[in-house]
Amino acid sequence: MKKVFILGSTGSIGVNCLNVISKLKDEFEVTGLTVNSNTELLIKQISQFSPKVVVVRDKNSAKKILDKIPDSCELLVGEEGLIQASIDAEYDIFIGALVGFAGLAPTIEAVKRGKRIALANKETLVVAGELVTDLCRANSSEIIPVDSEHSAIYQCLIGENLNEVEKLILTASGGPFLNKEKSFFENATVDEALNHPNWKMGSKITIDSATMMNKGLEVIEAHWLFGLPVDKIEVVIHPQSIIHSMVQFVDGSIKAQLGLPDMKLPIQYALTFPDRLQNHFERTNLPGIGLLTFFEPDFNKFECLKLAFKTLNEGGTAPCVLNAANEVAVSKFLNKEIKFSHIPLLINKALDKVENIFSPDLGTIFECDKKTREYVLTLT
Amino acid sequence: MKKVFILGSTGSIGVNCLNVISKLKDEFEVTGLTVNSNTELLIKQISQFSPKVVVVRDKNSAKKILDKIPDSCELLVGEEGLIQASIDAEYDIFIGALVGFAGLAPTIEAVKRGKRIALANKETLVVAGELVTDLCRANSSEIIPVDSEHSAIYQCLIGENLNEVEKLILTASGGPFLNKEKSFFENATVDEALNHPNWKMGSKITIDSATMMNKGLEVIEAHWLFGLPVDKIEVVIHPQSIIHSMVQFVDGSIKAQLGLPDMKLPIQYALTFPDRLQNHFERTNLPGIGLLTFFEPDFNKFECLKLAFKTLNEGGTAPCVLNAANEVAVSKFLNKEIKFSHIPLLINKALDKVENIFSPDLGTIFECDKKTREYVLTLT
Repeated sequence: MKKVFILGSTGSIGVNCLNVISKLKDEFEVTGLTVNSNTELLIKQISQFSPKVVVVRDKNSAKKILDKIPDSCELLVGEEGLIQASIDAEYDIFIGALVGFAGLAPTIEAVKRGKRIALANKETLVVAGELVTDLCRANSSEIIPVDSEHSAIYQCLIGENLNEVEKLILTASGGPFLNKEKSFFENATVDEALNHPNWKMGSKITIDSATMMNKGLEVIEAHWLFGLPVDKIEVVIHPQSIIHSMVQFVDGSIKAQLGLPDMKLPIQYALTFPDRLQNHFERTNLPGIGLLTFFEPDFNKFECLKLAFKTLNEGGTAPCVLNAANEVAVSKFLNKEIKFSHIPLLINKALDKVENIFSPDLGTIFECDKKTREYVLTLT
Repeated sequence: MKKVFILGSTGSIGVNCLNVISKLKDEFEVTGLTVNSNTELLIKQISQFSPKVVVVRDKNSAKKILDKIPDSCELLVGEEGLIQASIDAEYDIFIGALVGFAGLAPTIEAVKRGKRIALANKETLVVAGELVTDLCRANSSEIIPVDSEHSAIYQCLIGENLNEVEKLILTASGGPFLNKEKSFFENATVDEALNHPNWKMGSKITIDSATMMNKGLEVIEAHWLFGLPVDKIEVVIHPQSIIHSMVQFVDGSIKAQLGLPDMKLPIQYALTFPDRLQNHFERTNLPGIGLLTFFEPDFNKFECLKLAFKTLNEGGTAPCVLNAANEVAVSKFLNKEIKFSHIPLLINKALDKVENIFSPDLGTIFECDKKTREYVLTLT
């Protein structure tokens, strides 16, 4: 029976995680849950999974649930609570399902404890890839990716030799704006950008999919997860999202992992690896799907993707600036403060403005993140 | 430096094999070559690769080359020569590249010596799967498949657990008659049947591709190679022949191996496994290819495929009868003695006529093969 701690249990990944675990009750026990403000759902999750500790964003949220949780469940609050729970809670697997920069510090605590990290939080590796992978090595902590693309690559690499990889090929749906002209981005609305063709996800990641920043962040994540240089990582547009990603080896052979666009599969894999457990998820019927298509990405149209490759090439805190600027810009777009087309402009300005520092420590990363956010908040 | 013996060096696979080896001269040394009657090409191969032994079909062929080969090269003749060379020659890897039933006996000798078998000869496992796989286990001989489909499955299974396989999905191009009506088979000509859309192969296997018997034989081969029951093996039509085959696991995840339709890749893999060696084969450009399509096979149209599944279900010598009847029927078609549509009819008649014997020994298999051929020769 493995103990599972879920950072971000009411988000899209967190809910899917608990869905998977609810079907594997003999294998997994939930010991900790953390949420932002969705206390209503948290209450339900507590009654179903009986965690020993929960963390909520602030005292207001804590007040709302204090009377509704059993005495056996400890209640912690805020960022400090997240970190304390990550340090103290009993768990074998830490699921980093929190979206954004806030997932970094608690994840680092789990890494320091040498735990298995089922990582859905891209930012952990995007902003602190060098630091986190060094810590993983030092603490024998293993990261199993939960993103469908990285899970696909991870699965394709099982039993293979990393030195024999010629390139990683990340597939991208191309998002809702794949077939729009670049000029369309001027007046693209929030509703249009949130209308993803294949995946149901949170709003931040759905906008990232429309700008293809999501794929850019995944390229950076793949670089750190698999230790391959940027020129060995490629993006191919594959609108059906059936091939989740591929690995090409030095002999020219390509291995791919396929499945329906359903996060439950990579989540279960990250939990049960190296085993695969029988489930009743819907199976992929290729004759039913009929056709899979592939295109080169348009870097001119999807400037955010180009910017991500650029920052990975530059290294240092550049990806941290990219990520922080993107988070603020996306939030501005969702609040209708800026146009869709301005997202890459704001990121570019931040990359020009904020100094790049190489081999940053955690303090430097936090400072860089804060400085970038403050700067981008002033932009329009 | 590994020593390689090639059974059938002037056929399509044999030539590709030597092509691969010629680029990996520091890794492989050719110690034996066997051919049917193409002595002209054999002479060239001898001068390029300096094998220690060669085998030709008969004394006539031997006479033609006796003066043209160096004294250091031993010359053997006929089926006995094939077997003797398989028993006596020095080699680490035995490449079974001979098409048809004739490859069986020499391959068994290589298995008994515990050698690595790079197997392109489908018939070895189709007619004697139980016997050969038992011998492999007893002699610690490993079969690495050379067929692109089985190589794909082999690659997808690396590092995975066979008990966690839900099904094997063999892809089939559908051959030259994929889009023809069944009525077209009445008057299909030899030239039409030999016009394969993707693969350049010998004439027997190209006709087998037009009837889809080739895929049927591969289903039987897959059953023995991977030890999975017939209901866990599926065929999907994929006309582009880019996905070479797939494995679906119990968690619903599918792994696929992709590449251009070029036998050099699976040949090299079978030679170098578990390593993958750098090469300059053309790479697969998915955006360039653009689209991959998938259909259910039409078992009503492709009766040979249905017959193959039927014999695998029946077991015993039924697949041996299927194979022998098919070889004779295809040869009759190539000689314009029967119509294309009569190939499955002749096979069906043989399956009705020849008694099925379970767990056959080698003698029984030879007898069954002989009896079937004699019978089908009398049919029109």
